[in-house]
Amino acid sequence: MLNISEKDIKKYYSMEECMEAVQDAFRLFSQGKVEVPLRTQIKNEEGTGTYLCMPAYCQEYDASCVKVLNMFPGNVEKGLPTINAQILVMDTETGVINGLVDGTYVTRLRTGAASGVAFRLLAKKYCKIGALIGTGGQAATQLEAMLTAKELKEVRVYDLDFERAKNFAESMRKSLAKFPTEIVAVADADEAIDNADLITTVTSSTQAVFDGNKVKAGATISGVGSYQPHMQEIPVELLKRASKIYFDSQEAVLAEAGDLLVPLDKGEITKDKFTGDIGQLASNELLGRENDEEIILFETVGIAAQDLTTAKSIFTKVQEND
Amino acid sequence: MLNISEKDIKKYYSMEECMEAVQDAFRLFSQGKVEVPLRTQIKNEEGTGTYLCMPAYCQEYDASCVKVLNMFPGNVEKGLPTINAQILVMDTETGVINGLVDGTYVTRLRTGAASGVAFRLLAKKYCKIGALIGTGGQAATQLEAMLTAKELKEVRVYDLDFERAKNFAESMRKSLAKFPTEIVAVADADEAIDNADLITTVTSSTQAVFDGNKVKAGATISGVGSYQPHMQEIPVELLKRASKIYFDSQEAVLAEAGDLLVPLDKGEITKDKFTGDIGQLASNELLGRENDEEIILFETVGIAAQDLTTAKSIFTKVQEND
Repeated sequence: MLNISEKDIKKYYSMEECMEAVQDAFRLFSQGKVEVPLRTQIKNEEGTGTYLCMPAYCQEYDASCVKVLNMFPGNVEKGLPTINAQILVMDTETGVINGLVDGTYVTRLRTGAASGVAFRLLAKKYCKIGALIGTGGQAATQLEAMLTAKELKEVRVYDLDFERAKNFAESMRKSLAKFPTEIVAVADADEAIDNADLITTVTSSTQAVFDGNKVKAGATISGVGSYQPHMQEIPVELLKRASKIYFDSQEAVLAEAGDLLVPLDKGEITKDKFTGDIGQLASNELLGRENDEEIILFETVGIAAQDLTTAKSIFTKVQEND
Repeated sequence: MLNISEKDIKKYYSMEECMEAVQDAFRLFSQGKVEVPLRTQIKNEEGTGTYLCMPAYCQEYDASCVKVLNMFPGNVEKGLPTINAQILVMDTETGVINGLVDGTYVTRLRTGAASGVAFRLLAKKYCKIGALIGTGGQAATQLEAMLTAKELKEVRVYDLDFERAKNFAESMRKSLAKFPTEIVAVADADEAIDNADLITTVTSSTQAVFDGNKVKAGATISGVGSYQPHMQEIPVELLKRASKIYFDSQEAVLAEAGDLLVPLDKGEITKDKFTGDIGQLASNELLGRENDEEIILFETVGIAAQDLTTAKSIFTKVQEND
C-alpha cells in the first residue's frame, strides 16, 4: 500500500500533469465512460459534520477509486482543516487496494486544474492580465493553474481582507517564482478585473464579487466558489454578456450552484444561454471560442471523475519514482 | 494516520475483545442506533470484479468508518486473495481520517466473532463437543471464536477435501495451542456433528452439508457460509427441528441467504419459525434459550455495524499501544 502525502505529490506531480488528467476526466465524463454511483452521505448526530463517500470507476482510464471527504465547519475553531479527505486507489484487474492519496490536497489540485483546463480550452490565444478573487484554501492551486495555462504578465489578487490578500501574494511570489508573472495584491475587486483576460472567483460569497459590466470583451472567467444554492459570486450582468457558458457538469452545477440557480429562479437568465459541458468541447462535440471578443464563463462545482483521474495519475507517477 | 495491518491486530487485539465489539454492534443495530446508507456497488466492465463501498456511523459507539471491499473471484488463479478490503476510521468530532485498518482481516475476525457471540448468548451453559464444517479462508477465526465462547473438550473439523481438513487441524493445533481443546480432522461431516453441542458451517455449498436429523438435542448452530440466494449449507430438517432461529439481521439474511430463501420459496418452512435479531436478545427484548433440549440456529451474513465497532475498537487499542 503506497501512502501518498501532499509532500509526495508536490515532489513528483505537476499542475501540468493534473490539467492533463482533469481534461481526460471531463472528456471521459462527457462520453459517459465514468461510472459514478450516487455518493453516500451521513450527517453526525449534532448536525455539525458530514461524511461523504464517493466511489468512481473508468475502464478506459484503467482507474477505480473511492474518495472519502468529511466536512466539519467547526474545525476552524479547533485550528483544524474543515475538509479532511483521503482517496483509496484500487487495481482494476484484481481489486487490490494499493494506494492511499491525500484527498484534501487532490481536491485542491484538481479544482485548480479545472480552471486551468478551461482557460486553456476557452481563453484567447494571447492573454496578459489575470485576476484572482478570493485567497482562501483553494486559491493557491487556482493561481498556479492560471499561470500554467497561460503565460501572463500580471495577476492581481483580491480578498475582502486586504491583509490576507497581501500575505497570499507574498507567499505565492515565492512558491510560484518559476513563472515570469508579477503577482500583486489589490484593494478593490473591480481594479483586479480591470482589463483582465482571465478571471477566477473562488470565494464563499452570496453576492456578486465584481461589477459584471467592467469585464473586458474577450475575457474568460472561471467560477469556482459557488457550490451551494445560496452562494453567488458571478454577477448577473456577466451571465447576460457571456457568449458561451460551459460547465464541468451542467447537471451537477444546476443541482448546487447559486451562481446559476439564483438568476434562473429570478428569471434573469434562461437555460438557452448554456452551451454545455466542457468535456463535449474536449471531445470536439461542441464549438469553443470563435473570436477574441467573446466573453466566456466556465462554472465548476467539481465532479468525481476529476478525483479519479487525478488520484490515479498521481499514484502511477509516485509508484514509478518510489 | 495509523496504518494497522493484520500483524498489528494480532499483536494488540483479541477475539475476546472482538466478540465484545460485535455484541455491541448487534445491540446497537437492533436499537436502530447505527446509521448505514445503502452500500454502493460498481462492477468492472468485464464483469469479473465488484467494488463495494460501505460507510457506517454510530454516535453512541463514537465511531465512523468506511469499508471498501473488492471481490475478484479470478484472483485465485493469480495467487491473490479474492477479497481485498480496507477500512478507514474517522474521528466523530472532527471528521479527521486517522486510521486505515486491514479490512480483509477485520472481515474474518468479525465474522468469527459473530458466531462466538451467538454461542455465548444461545448455547447451553456447558458444552463439550464442537464441529466446524468447512476449512477455507474464514474457518480459522470461526474456530477461534468457538473456543473463546466455550471451553470445549474436542472440536472436529471437516472439509470435502480431507487433506485440507487435516492440514487445517494441524495448523490450528499450533495457533490455538493456548486452548485446552483437542482439534481433530474427520473424514465425514455426520461424524463431525455427532453429539456436537456447537456446530459452525462455513462453506460455499449449495446443498445441506450434514444430516439435520443427526444433530443432537440442545445443540447450537451458526450458519455462516450461505450469503447468496443459491447457497445452502443448513439442512431443512434442522430448520424444522430448531426451536428458535436468530439472525444478525433478519432483513439482510432474507435478502441474501439461500439457507432460508430456498426452503421459504419451496414452502418447506414459514417465517413463523423466525425468532428475531440476536441484538434484540442482547438488549433483552427477546427471550434466549429456555432449556438444554432446544436446538437453536443462528444465521449470519454479516452487517456493516460489525465492521464499524470492530475497526473502531481495534483502532483505539492499537493507538493506546502505539
